Amino acid sequence: MKGYIHVYTGNGKGKTTAAIGLSVRAVGANKKVFFAQFVKGQKYSEVKTIQQFLPAITIKQYGLDCFIYQKPKHEDVEAARKGLKEVSEIIMSGTYDMVVLDEANIAMYYKLFCVEELIELLKRKPEHVEVIITGRNAPDELIEIADLVTEMKEIKHYYTKGVQARKGIEH
Amino acid sequence: MKGYIHVYTGNGKGKTTAAIGLSVRAVGANKKVFFAQFVKGQKYSEVKTIQQFLPAITIKQYGLDCFIYQKPKHEDVEAARKGLKEVSEIIMSGTYDMVVLDEANIAMYYKLFCVEELIELLKRKPEHVEVIITGRNAPDELIEIADLVTEMKEIKHYYTKGVQARKGIEH
Repeated sequence: MKGYIHVYTGNGKGKTTAAIGLSVRAVGANKKVFFAQFVKGQKYSEVKTIQQFLPAITIKQYGLDCFIYQKPKHEDVEAARKGLKEVSEIIMSGTYDMVVLDEANIAMYYKLFCVEELIELLKRKPEHVEVIITGRNAPDELIEIADLVTEMKEIKHYYTKGVQARKGIEH
Repeated sequence: MKGYIHVYTGNGKGKTTAAIGLSVRAVGANKKVFFAQFVKGQKYSEVKTIQQFLPAITIKQYGLDCFIYQKPKHEDVEAARKGLKEVSEIIMSGTYDMVVLDEANIAMYYKLFCVEELIELLKRKPEHVEVIITGRNAPDELIEIADLVTEMKEIKHYYTKGVQARKGIEH
């Protein structure tokens, strides 16, 4: 079965969760999933569930334990570059049917690696591997080569009402 | 913790998967999830994964094994009405921290039940219960009372290139 390239972007809630949902669905069809989280390093609730209950999904984080707010640190760049290298090997090996690059758009937005590197990788990927890329601000060049692009558009968000991010809902 | 009402709508891919991802995240924070699928009755890959690996998520389907293409049959209406009744009891019991009404928007679009019934239920829900509603064509009245609304907007879809729905990716 041919694998396609998905991009989930936009400012609305639902990008990472959609990638998790796709991974869960893939597992039910006996697929193996590699879920790479860029920029993020905290032990989010979804990471716990996957590690505890879903052995067909390998999850690995390539980010520090605090988010980048302004200028990325040297360590942010290092972590993301290590991630891109490992994910490249994973994709090229063809061992995993689905590879998720969660928040890779954010990593590119902060120039932790550049879109050309990712596109170069995607062009060489084994045919059967499905690749899922998430994060707001997807670069135009990536949208251009992707097979499926959904913009998660914020129509209404409770953050604007002052609701804080909650454990088990946002992280 | 106060629970909110989410709506994931729009014509793009990622609505049901976002609801699955939210459920997976909730489980990692020791929450109990009830996942109701309206309109759908087939044993999708995600249903298999949830039933096999995620005991904290109870998944139940209230649809026939074929999708509604034109006019809903009497059985479609019956299945959805039974679903709304059961989900109402589930929500009102307060036993589940998160209740998902997957494709409920489609059920309302086909008038299997009406938006007023759902809103009446949401107004009476126990404060702590988080409710997630998915499906394209969310009614305006629902968007009005929801706390968070994301429109999954199709920017590009491989269906338009002739790619068929695939097991483990779309179902």
